[in-house]
Amino acid sequence: MSLTKGSEQKLSRRDFFRKTAVYSAGAIAAANVLSPVKLKADDPAIVNEAEWGTKLGDLVTKNLYGVPSPYEHNVIRRTTDLLSSGDMYASVSMCPIHELQGIITPNGLFFTRNHGGTAHVDPKEFRLMIHGKVKREVVLTLDELKKYPSESRIHFIECPANGSTGWRGPQFNNLQFMKGMMSSAEWTGVMLKTVLEDIGLEDDAVWMLAEGSDNAGNPRTIPVEKALDDAMLVWAQNGEALRPEQGYPLRLLVPGWEGNLNTKWLKRLEFSDKPWHAKEETSKYTMLQKNGKAIRYFWPNEVNSVITSPCPEKPWTHLKKGDMIEIEGLAWSGHGTIKNVDISFDGGDNWVEANLKGLVLPKSWTRFSYIMKWEGKPLLLSSRAVDDTGNVQPTIDQETSAVGVESVYHRNAIVTWEVSEKGEVNNVHIRKHNA
Amino acid sequence: MSLTKGSEQKLSRRDFFRKTAVYSAGAIAAANVLSPVKLKADDPAIVNEAEWGTKLGDLVTKNLYGVPSPYEHNVIRRTTDLLSSGDMYASVSMCPIHELQGIITPNGLFFTRNHGGTAHVDPKEFRLMIHGKVKREVVLTLDELKKYPSESRIHFIECPANGSTGWRGPQFNNLQFMKGMMSSAEWTGVMLKTVLEDIGLEDDAVWMLAEGSDNAGNPRTIPVEKALDDAMLVWAQNGEALRPEQGYPLRLLVPGWEGNLNTKWLKRLEFSDKPWHAKEETSKYTMLQKNGKAIRYFWPNEVNSVITSPCPEKPWTHLKKGDMIEIEGLAWSGHGTIKNVDISFDGGDNWVEANLKGLVLPKSWTRFSYIMKWEGKPLLLSSRAVDDTGNVQPTIDQETSAVGVESVYHRNAIVTWEVSEKGEVNNVHIRKHNA
Repeated sequence: MSLTKGSEQKLSRRDFFRKTAVYSAGAIAAANVLSPVKLKADDPAIVNEAEWGTKLGDLVTKNLYGVPSPYEHNVIRRTTDLLSSGDMYASVSMCPIHELQGIITPNGLFFTRNHGGTAHVDPKEFRLMIHGKVKREVVLTLDELKKYPSESRIHFIECPANGSTGWRGPQFNNLQFMKGMMSSAEWTGVMLKTVLEDIGLEDDAVWMLAEGSDNAGNPRTIPVEKALDDAMLVWAQNGEALRPEQGYPLRLLVPGWEGNLNTKWLKRLEFSDKPWHAKEETSKYTMLQKNGKAIRYFWPNEVNSVITSPCPEKPWTHLKKGDMIEIEGLAWSGHGTIKNVDISFDGGDNWVEANLKGLVLPKSWTRFSYIMKWEGKPLLLSSRAVDDTGNVQPTIDQETSAVGVESVYHRNAIVTWEVSEKGEVNNVHIRKHNA
Repeated sequence: MSLTKGSEQKLSRRDFFRKTAVYSAGAIAAANVLSPVKLKADDPAIVNEAEWGTKLGDLVTKNLYGVPSPYEHNVIRRTTDLLSSGDMYASVSMCPIHELQGIITPNGLFFTRNHGGTAHVDPKEFRLMIHGKVKREVVLTLDELKKYPSESRIHFIECPANGSTGWRGPQFNNLQFMKGMMSSAEWTGVMLKTVLEDIGLEDDAVWMLAEGSDNAGNPRTIPVEKALDDAMLVWAQNGEALRPEQGYPLRLLVPGWEGNLNTKWLKRLEFSDKPWHAKEETSKYTMLQKNGKAIRYFWPNEVNSVITSPCPEKPWTHLKKGDMIEIEGLAWSGHGTIKNVDISFDGGDNWVEANLKGLVLPKSWTRFSYIMKWEGKPLLLSSRAVDDTGNVQPTIDQETSAVGVESVYHRNAIVTWEVSEKGEVNNVHIRKHNA
């Protein structure tokens, strides 16, 4: 392919004040975006009254709990038996992140990962037991737990297997399947620290086991240090009670750490001076290295990013040469706050700095943006995120060189879209993988 | 009633750094919240395995667009013919704000106000015409509009008739009906300023008319100054496409201003040097004064607040004497950012400062909190918000004295809950109104 460097006109700018401003730079210049558009005075859609303007609409009583427009019926979670057990009970549904805007995922589209299906817990029968190396063992009802002061925070949750097919075939050519095992929400609950300070930890309580009440249980060991840092017991997501598939009525939230640790349908927290070496942290959810050894207890989702527009499902085939267009994407890091995101048009040889837009919060999705003029020339579009702990997203070669290709988890290599002259978008890794 | 002053122990504190911190003070002390609770070793709900732990749950394919737990079936929007036309097409559904957490309202619970029912717009047939005193008149498809760079911002929308029954009878004794004509979301779209700078405004374009394509149309006049300030053309709400009842596929967002101005199913924007004096800004949506004259073009929802926990639907009847408990509520202002909220336990004679918690954003719901010890003594619980433009929420007497009781709109008087010795909660205004 031939790429003319310098063909991209940089119109966005970094707002150095974004950490203090409520919202980051909104002053994105958009000169002449619509230059070719004029008043189409004879457009039937504007000349004729719309059918829906000639009659009464639905009563407010039609949906006391609302639903999306029927025209959006394709914006749904999707699954594949490639990533599921044979019976589909240990399965995952991917979030349509190519269709999302902002940093909130509506609850109906939040990705789901189950090890034994979605449990339906009766909140009256719910109990949380906290025991082991604590000063006061307790069994709490939901009402008792909700007497604690609540906090609300926006965080992403990402399955560490997100992008797992990137390590080795088969490759997806579809953003929803490549990176849709994550979503973001405003969570409400009590800081776990508040509860643990109330009941008291023994001095040698160093590890915490979290276990769910569903048939899989999904026990996982978590260091007390994280429990006392920013972990939460959450009962609400985006303002309402958790959905059943997110652990109704209570889940553990360990911001920025492997989705699997955010135990759903939470039943008990046990404290000990030793880790548990549970199934889901020994036979699974480890980092297999190229020497055949596995790293265990590797928790944070590392710094990552992906361009969501364009992407294979959202190509630029509707653009004309000379159109101004916004490249947009998501960046996130389980280590902290996104500091900056760079964009390359030539597959990583040259980089320009993108604009971070909207709220820039710790362990939260952060939107980035870059406005360019589309000249109809082929591009290799990549994004590379950096977080405030100094972590930089690696290239595929760097990641492969460091840890091989035997792992399933913690893929955060740079994703590159191959944009054709016609504006078609494909995952370049497919061609590289097959070459 | 007898109120013992000083019976409330203030444990919360104001974080003076909250404007610079990502989240406001989370350090809410919660000492001994659970003092009475112990390990109930024989609790059947913890001793016996739960029924849902003994079998497989639902497949992820069951709901590719998720729904709430059946146990939450009472958390819905509600309507009343008191606030509707006879045929119920001009009606409103109230948001269950007593059940909400944080500052995001899930789209399924976002309040709805329709003048002619909910229109179902075909996005392919959608057009937005911008005409009148502009340099370049345009008719845009949705795809053309979405080529502009997008922004995402969290804002509330409030119907100016929210709390309308507060002016004069009948009074509600229910938070959902008293204040549920508002909700909050993360909105995504293009700043109207970006579009207007692109097509150009004539020098004498001082007013903008916004009109919807539904049968009601709901034309309203808005000053160009607001259009160029923070108004947006939004196509997404909490990450997904607008719901039909919120104006799918495009609505106008005028942050902080009367809900009625946030035109749904948007069809056209016209610019002129004169206002239009449309029906919905002359016969309705005006402020009738006690002298019989009405104030027109009164747009911002003024500084306001209400305690959401406790409230009539969320009483303290489950508390025991000596329990620590968090008072929580919502504050908002169409003029700007909430600066502080005070709480009174004696109906307004004495005030203490509440803690603002979570994100504190302009023209957005802001959560406030105050932790106290419940001594089982009767209280008159009130909240009073102040915004960063210096506006202070008035008392009922102040508001009545200023504008009488003939208005329907812009009620922002302080709400007081009467808390009985048993923890029952009632709207004190009912007793005052009937006295």
